[in-house]
Amino acid sequence: MVVQLGTLYGISVGPGDPELITLKGLRILKKVPVVAFPAGSHGKPGISQSIVGHWLQKYQIQLPLNFPYVQDRVTLRRAWQQAAEEVWQYLDLGQDVAFVCEGDISFYSTFTYLAQTLEQLHPQSLVQRIPGVCSPLATASACGEPLTVRSDRLAVLPALYNIEELETILDWADVVVLMKVSSVYPQIWKVLQQRQLLENAVVVERATLPEQIIYADLRDRPTLKLPYFSLIIVKVTPSI
Amino acid sequence: MVVQLGTLYGISVGPGDPELITLKGLRILKKVPVVAFPAGSHGKPGISQSIVGHWLQKYQIQLPLNFPYVQDRVTLRRAWQQAAEEVWQYLDLGQDVAFVCEGDISFYSTFTYLAQTLEQLHPQSLVQRIPGVCSPLATASACGEPLTVRSDRLAVLPALYNIEELETILDWADVVVLMKVSSVYPQIWKVLQQRQLLENAVVVERATLPEQIIYADLRDRPTLKLPYFSLIIVKVTPSI
Repeated sequence: MVVQLGTLYGISVGPGDPELITLKGLRILKKVPVVAFPAGSHGKPGISQSIVGHWLQKYQIQLPLNFPYVQDRVTLRRAWQQAAEEVWQYLDLGQDVAFVCEGDISFYSTFTYLAQTLEQLHPQSLVQRIPGVCSPLATASACGEPLTVRSDRLAVLPALYNIEELETILDWADVVVLMKVSSVYPQIWKVLQQRQLLENAVVVERATLPEQIIYADLRDRPTLKLPYFSLIIVKVTPSI
Repeated sequence: MVVQLGTLYGISVGPGDPELITLKGLRILKKVPVVAFPAGSHGKPGISQSIVGHWLQKYQIQLPLNFPYVQDRVTLRRAWQQAAEEVWQYLDLGQDVAFVCEGDISFYSTFTYLAQTLEQLHPQSLVQRIPGVCSPLATASACGEPLTVRSDRLAVLPALYNIEELETILDWADVVVLMKVSSVYPQIWKVLQQRQLLENAVVVERATLPEQIIYADLRDRPTLKLPYFSLIIVKVTPSI
């Protein structure tokens, strides 16, 4: 008897508010026997695990997968391979697996490493992606402002490795999103100050969660103690 | 007796598949007495109206609003003011209004004009935005590829007014999204050909709808007849 392969679903669960998952994402999440997610650290649950906690069924297997926060490619590749093989064990038995990820599954997501490694190791794998709400758009809604309008040119920088890059993009774009800004915030602040853009910039931490904080004008905030998933939106040219 | 003002909700309904609305969006959509949307043209329903058609209740008032496709600012402003006043009539009576918009409400959305005009005319207005799935992310999922990974710099151009702009951004970004490409496709194709990027580009029309079409390699496609809401994703630098 040939068992039909299970499907790996990448389910975007949105930025934090559990109600910001899509109907499609929730429908699939509820029907799969196995729910995988990036494991938390220091004994805390992972972010996406927390977001979907409310929706999980008692009979579902929860599968935390280890994606270490390191730069070393060998360590990373080994972790991805191990995660892919753990998932494959279920797929090979015909069981569907939903991997849940905060934000959107195609937008700087851990899911990419899992899916690509799985497809390398087991090219017959079936993978489906369910899109969702990404953090820049959730942040804009939380601020009560559009992210982009009309002919706005948008640039997104996931991390800032050198400050010249910020200068280049402020010359080009109408709207700039800087993600994960906690460690480089003071340098960004200085650039925005020189360009008189502090009034047009907003910092948001934990968008859409009850503990969300919005700093809507940065002129008096040369330093800020921010969590890892904070982002800045800069309106370089004023919208309508 | 003072009547409490109604709230204007901007509800993102996603790129086309009705199941890609969020739980929050649907919960609010179902409870409001009035559902507004950009009116269709040529006797056809509007896009967002079609997407949520399945979810509308018989007792809900449907309010098509006219947002003409013109450049003239006076005509536009007059249309926005009329739309805002139509919505205000209900809000002033204490009735909530949900304005539904395809994609995300903060991402190049008609909702911005309605909300800003309403807030100018009636500063006491209550407005809430519910984020959703935007078309570039839905398109990436449909293609089975991430939009961005790791340190990718992302640029989004909503419309292309001159081809030099495309050259500039191909020099800077790792991933470029070009929206509404139907009228400028042949020029874009030539630039991508010169840079040997045709293999790394994908065109998608009507993402997530049953009539979705994906052109995954553009080398043999110097011309394409595309609908208005088609977009191109170009991977300038290869991802992982």
